[in-house]
Amino acid sequence: MSPLNIYLALVHFPVVNRDGETIASAVTNLDLHDLARIGCTYGVRQCYIATPLADQQILVRRIVAHWTRGFGGTRNPDRRQAMESLRVVATLEEAVAAVTAQEGCRPRLVATSARPDPRRLKVPELREAAADGTPCLLIFGTASGLADALLDGVDAVLEPIRGAGAYNHLPVRAAAAIILDRLAGAPAD
Amino acid sequence: MSPLNIYLALVHFPVVNRDGETIASAVTNLDLHDLARIGCTYGVRQCYIATPLADQQILVRRIVAHWTRGFGGTRNPDRRQAMESLRVVATLEEAVAAVTAQEGCRPRLVATSARPDPRRLKVPELREAAADGTPCLLIFGTASGLADALLDGVDAVLEPIRGAGAYNHLPVRAAAAIILDRLAGAPAD
Repeated sequence: MSPLNIYLALVHFPVVNRDGETIASAVTNLDLHDLARIGCTYGVRQCYIATPLADQQILVRRIVAHWTRGFGGTRNPDRRQAMESLRVVATLEEAVAAVTAQEGCRPRLVATSARPDPRRLKVPELREAAADGTPCLLIFGTASGLADALLDGVDAVLEPIRGAGAYNHLPVRAAAAIILDRLAGAPAD
Repeated sequence: MSPLNIYLALVHFPVVNRDGETIASAVTNLDLHDLARIGCTYGVRQCYIATPLADQQILVRRIVAHWTRGFGGTRNPDRRQAMESLRVVATLEEAVAAVTAQEGCRPRLVATSARPDPRRLKVPELREAAADGTPCLLIFGTASGLADALLDGVDAVLEPIRGAGAYNHLPVRAAAAIILDRLAGAPAD
């Protein structure tokens, strides 16, 4: 059981593409469902979907409405419970402001990245630092990851997930599941 | 680093729907990509996509061909490497036969399920049992999970993933990521 006070943000801008250019990525429907379900499993307070694109914000709101107030939620109450944790924001700053308003203090901003970063924080260090209930906003990037402009403004960057070899291309959905399990999952034994 | 000798099977029949009826589920495109990428990260030997439906087998083969021999693979070599680990089979038995032919012995069949089962195996027990390189076929069900008819024929069932509360509805993509990380991931500290 986790006493951690964790929020998630899934960022669609500023992120980089495969060529390292800063872009605004398109929202992936399954990212919304998976983030919501994974967050619900590990006791996450709220998942912020950050995109500055008005049509993408409308799309996310339509999907969430279908599963919370529409037929999807009637047919599948478990999915409704998960999708109710999603909030659309234009920017990461807006998510930070929402958590700050809810908690009465600014959350610690912890980014995730598969790239090297000197400010590396290990998962056990984060778990220990967050054990007193200090709010933490875990930030995930879509496309090929968060842009430096955003990474420059966070408090810490989690160490990358290492698997069993050199392959280093996990979907953001899988990275979120693994990091939350390492952070807040019941011990495996 | 993992010396484990692990194969995955993603089963689309026999699985159950939300009402507990046995069905053949439709293939989800992102399941293929995510399983392949997660498997590649954790050193999985091969991922079998099991569906008895001829049109679904054709669909999977087309998707895999796009990312291995078509434009997708040219544009994205990392994805090609992952997608090359996918194999289409009609049944779980066919996957077992393929692993047996490759390894020279039958793999241990370990199913995953979110439901209670008296044959529960803990992840550390599996890791220990597999440490000598004994091949293991980890079986994941789509839709609402593997049907009893299939579960009756396996050697063991992994204990369900517990999060931080009662919510117990992880996507199969997330369950696979978490189980492989617990089984074969580098230690978090």
